[in-house]
This record gives sequence, C-alpha cells and structure tokens, in this order.
Amino acid sequence: MEIYKLNFENLIENYKSKINTRLSKMYDSGPKSLKNTFDYVVNSNGKRIRPVLTLLTNKACNGNVEDCLAAANSIELLHNFTLVHDDIMDDDRLRRGLETVHEKWDLGTGVLSGDLILSVALDNLTNNYIDKPDVIQVFIKGLVAVCEGQALDKEFETVETVDIKDYLNMIDLKTGYLLGMCADIGSRIANVDIDLSLKLRKYGMLIGRGFQIQDDYLELFSSSNNMGKSLKSDILLDKKTFLMILAKKESPKLIKEALDTSKENFNLSINKIRSIIVNDGIKEYTERTIDRIFKEANSILEEIKFDMSQIKLFTDYISKRKK
Amino acid sequence: MEIYKLNFENLIENYKSKINTRLSKMYDSGPKSLKNTFDYVVNSNGKRIRPVLTLLTNKACNGNVEDCLAAANSIELLHNFTLVHDDIMDDDRLRRGLETVHEKWDLGTGVLSGDLILSVALDNLTNNYIDKPDVIQVFIKGLVAVCEGQALDKEFETVETVDIKDYLNMIDLKTGYLLGMCADIGSRIANVDIDLSLKLRKYGMLIGRGFQIQDDYLELFSSSNNMGKSLKSDILLDKKTFLMILAKKESPKLIKEALDTSKENFNLSINKIRSIIVNDGIKEYTERTIDRIFKEANSILEEIKFDMSQIKLFTDYISKRKK
Repeated sequence: MEIYKLNFENLIENYKSKINTRLSKMYDSGPKSLKNTFDYVVNSNGKRIRPVLTLLTNKACNGNVEDCLAAANSIELLHNFTLVHDDIMDDDRLRRGLETVHEKWDLGTGVLSGDLILSVALDNLTNNYIDKPDVIQVFIKGLVAVCEGQALDKEFETVETVDIKDYLNMIDLKTGYLLGMCADIGSRIANVDIDLSLKLRKYGMLIGRGFQIQDDYLELFSSSNNMGKSLKSDILLDKKTFLMILAKKESPKLIKEALDTSKENFNLSINKIRSIIVNDGIKEYTERTIDRIFKEANSILEEIKFDMSQIKLFTDYISKRKK
Repeated sequence: MEIYKLNFENLIENYKSKINTRLSKMYDSGPKSLKNTFDYVVNSNGKRIRPVLTLLTNKACNGNVEDCLAAANSIELLHNFTLVHDDIMDDDRLRRGLETVHEKWDLGTGVLSGDLILSVALDNLTNNYIDKPDVIQVFIKGLVAVCEGQALDKEFETVETVDIKDYLNMIDLKTGYLLGMCADIGSRIANVDIDLSLKLRKYGMLIGRGFQIQDDYLELFSSSNNMGKSLKSDILLDKKTFLMILAKKESPKLIKEALDTSKENFNLSINKIRSIIVNDGIKEYTERTIDRIFKEANSILEEIKFDMSQIKLFTDYISKRKK
C-alpha cells in the first residue's frame, strides 16, 4: 500500500510537471503587458488540483492523457481567471505568497489580465476540441456557475446571517461546479457514456464541496501565511464561511462582539472567534462534516465499472491537505 | 432611392427591436445582484451596430434571420462586457448617458458583472450553435482580439508617441476584429462558402477601422454630452487617438503645452488642441481618411455574388452618424 501511494504521488508530480510545462507556453505572442501578467499568474506555485483531477479521471476511464492535457490546462486557466478577479473584489494583496496582479501592477491591469487568461482558456479549448463541442459547452456552463457563486458570496457579505443551505448552494456554484467539471470533462475526452460522466461529475462536485469547507476551516485554523491568502479580508468583509455561519447561529452575541473589535485589534478578535468555535464544538463538527462529504464522494466511485483506485487516492490526497 | 432608404431605416429599427426584446430576456434567473446589473447594462440605449450588421449580412446571404438572432445578441453582449470593463480601466463615470456600473454600484460589482455578461454571451452561443462549432471558435478569437487591443491601447498611454501603423493594428484588434466577426458569423450561419465569409469579414474589419477613427474624430469635435462618454479621460490619460498621434507628430511642442495645462484648465486645453488640429489640416485629413476607408469597404462588396445593396446602405448609415 505504501509503494502504491508513493506511485500515486509520483504520478501527481508527473502530471503537475506536464501541466506546468504546457501552461508556461500557452501565451507566447500578444502585447507585452499581457504576456508579463499571464506568465506571472500561471507560473506561480499553484496546487493544480483541478487539472490533476481532469487527467486522473481521463486516465481512469482509459483515456490518452496527452489528448486531455489541453482541457486540463484550460480548466486551470479558468480557475486562475477567477483568482485574479476575486482578489480585486476582496482587495487581497497576496496570493500564493506573491503580490496579487492589481497590487503589483494596477487595477486596470488586474481586470484585463483576468479577461485575457479566460480568453486564452477558451481559445485553447476550442482549438483543441472543435470536434467535441459538448466539452466546450460544459466548460462554459462552469464559467457561468463560478460567476454566480462569486456573486452570492458577495451578496452574503451584506446580510447578517445566511442559511447553511444557501451557503452550500453558493460553494457548489463557486467551487463544486468546477471540480465536477474536471471529472466530467476528463471522462468525456475518454469517450465514455454520458451516464458515467455525470456520475464522475457528482463525485467532483462533492470533492469541491468538501474542499471549500476544508478551505474555510484551514483559513481559520492555520496561519494566514500557510494558506498564502488573507484571513483578514474574510473577517473584515464578514464572509459567510461554514464555521462563521454556525458560530453566528450558536453564539450570535459573542461573535458580534468579536467581529466589532476586528478593525481595532484583529489578533484579539480572531483569537476570540477561534475560542468560540472550539467551545461550541463547531471545529469538531466541521471536521466530521468534511470527512463525511469525502466519504460520500468515494461511495459514488463504487458504482463505476472502471478501476477507480487512483481517484480514491485523489480523495485521500485532498482530504489530508494541510494548506 | 429615398423610399429605399426609408425601408432600410425601417429594417434597422425592426432588427433593433428584435434584438432588444431578446436581450432583455437573456438572463432571467441567477443571483439578484447580477440580474440587476445585467438588465441595467443591456437595456441601456445602445446603438446595436454589431448585432444589426450580423443580421444584415445573414439576410444578404439568404439566411433566416431568426436563426441568427442568438449569435447577434451574443456579439452585442461581448461588446457590452468590454464596455463595462473598459469603463473601470479608464475610470469613466458615464456611459450612454447613465452612470457606469462600477460608479453606480462598486468596483467588485463592475468586474463581476462584466464577467457574467461575457459568460451569458458564451452560454447563449454554445446552446444555440452546438452544431456550428466554427461560429463559437470565431467568436472566441474575437474575444482574444478585443483583450489584446485594449492592452495595446493601455500600453500606449504610457509612451510619448505611437506610430500610426501601431495605432491601426490596435484599433483593428480593439474594434475592427469584432465588426469583422459580425459579418463573418452572420454569413456563416447562412451556410455560405468560407471564402465569402472571409470577404465579408474583411468588409467588417474596414467598417470597424473607419468607425473607430470616426469615434476619435467625433469625441474631439462633438460635445462630450453627444457622445455620452468622456473626452476628459481620453485627454487626461493621454490616449493615442488618430488625431492626437498626427497632431503630436506635426506640432509636438504646441500639443505638449496644451496637454500640460489639461489638469488645471481642461476647457482651455481642449480648445487649444482643437485649433492645432484644424490649423494643421488634420481635421480635414481625418475626414478624408474615414471616407476612403468606407469606400474601400464597399469595394469588397463588389466581388460578392449576393445582393449587397443593404450592406452598402449600412456603410452609409455608419459613415453618416453624428454621435
């Protein structure tokens, strides 16, 4: 089993290397200002979870990974487009340990670089899968979903409380849909039956849901530095994360007091919030919820005729991440 | 001939009405914040030049205009996406006589609304032309072109002088490509030979080129109110328009002096610039250039086997606009 896992980790590294090599060559011509920001964004140290899942599902469905690489990279670019624009919306200064685009250059460059990264994603996709227009269609539905998820996330900033059901809908759109799309598109390119693609999409959506709740969890219980992005903007913008929604429901008064002091003394405020969440049992409940979602994702794989052992290892890989 | 023209104007009004009716229904579900801004942008009083050209070329090639309406509207949405994001980049406050999205709401809403409008354009296109992936591909190449054109326009702001050849390349990308795409896609949907589509694309590109130089001209020689957008940001950002490039070449010292005072006394500065441009014969030269480009566009139509009389009337319609 240990050797098996080692092989899996090698496989992931091999895929990441393929992805990174191709990504770095995807925008070679064009205006210098766009080439600079494109390279800056795509060559930063991303986890590449989405393209890796795309290639893994393609391989598990007996696809030829080389035929799937272009799609995997378009999905990674779609993700990068959302990061560049989300950083503007949240006015985050750091991403993956580096200055964000609008911070390092300027606002206009941030907006336009995001647009260009998306355009290259779409151009690459249509050039490579003109004979598979359903892949293009699924991809574009993913684009609509992430915009809508981001809009809901923003809308939630201006309301006092959010129902956990609405939160789950928001993260399904913002994160789940894209992970679902990875597994869906990876299998489509392997020419499997549509039913199988839809099952794999469901698996990916659940991985995305677990991943996002885990993100909320790690954001609060690992240092800002580890996550490479800002816990501060989440708190100051009153972002409705899984843990904050539950904490506000359980201890509304205490959370309100802690949030009210966040502008004056951020560290004190965040320590208070952490204590409330631990004392109310929300930290532990969140851990169990994440675990349950990943188990549910794996149970879908049982119904699939192909060997899904590598995809299960991917679930492990995600569920055990510390940042 | 006068009755003929009246019929043409009726036809344009009829097309605009079809376009506007469909546009207003194109985003009916989704988060409220996006629905609000989508409606605000697409229901504003746009000239609809791009979708009208798309429908006209489709009709001239014996297409069924109803089959082309979805594409025409996706192109209009693509154009609207660029306006929303360009307004952020130029920090323009007014568009078509209304507050811009980032001004009326906020920056994040501006960025995200632009993204959503583009997403709806793409989603509508793939849903309606899944059996014509070349239409989708051409559309996406148009998207890449407008991003690159906008990047060059921005790059030009930070240099002292720009060669007129580089300016023409910039406007071909920023404006020409999209008008070319209208004529190309309109004819593709009518199932004509690819050679014919490429000829019509060339016609559209020239119309776009003439249109953009005319825009530069009208911006300077019609009141800011007439154009519904801001001459001020063009001057303050030192935008390299057709007329300014020539004026800087002809009278560098005088133009520099006029620009240097633009922050203190904008009206004085702009009147000085207008005088220089008139005295140097650049106003007249620009009028002749625009005229020549529209004639060149019409000459392409001579080579086409279908009846292009309506398209020629479209050239007239564009060339005679006063705003």
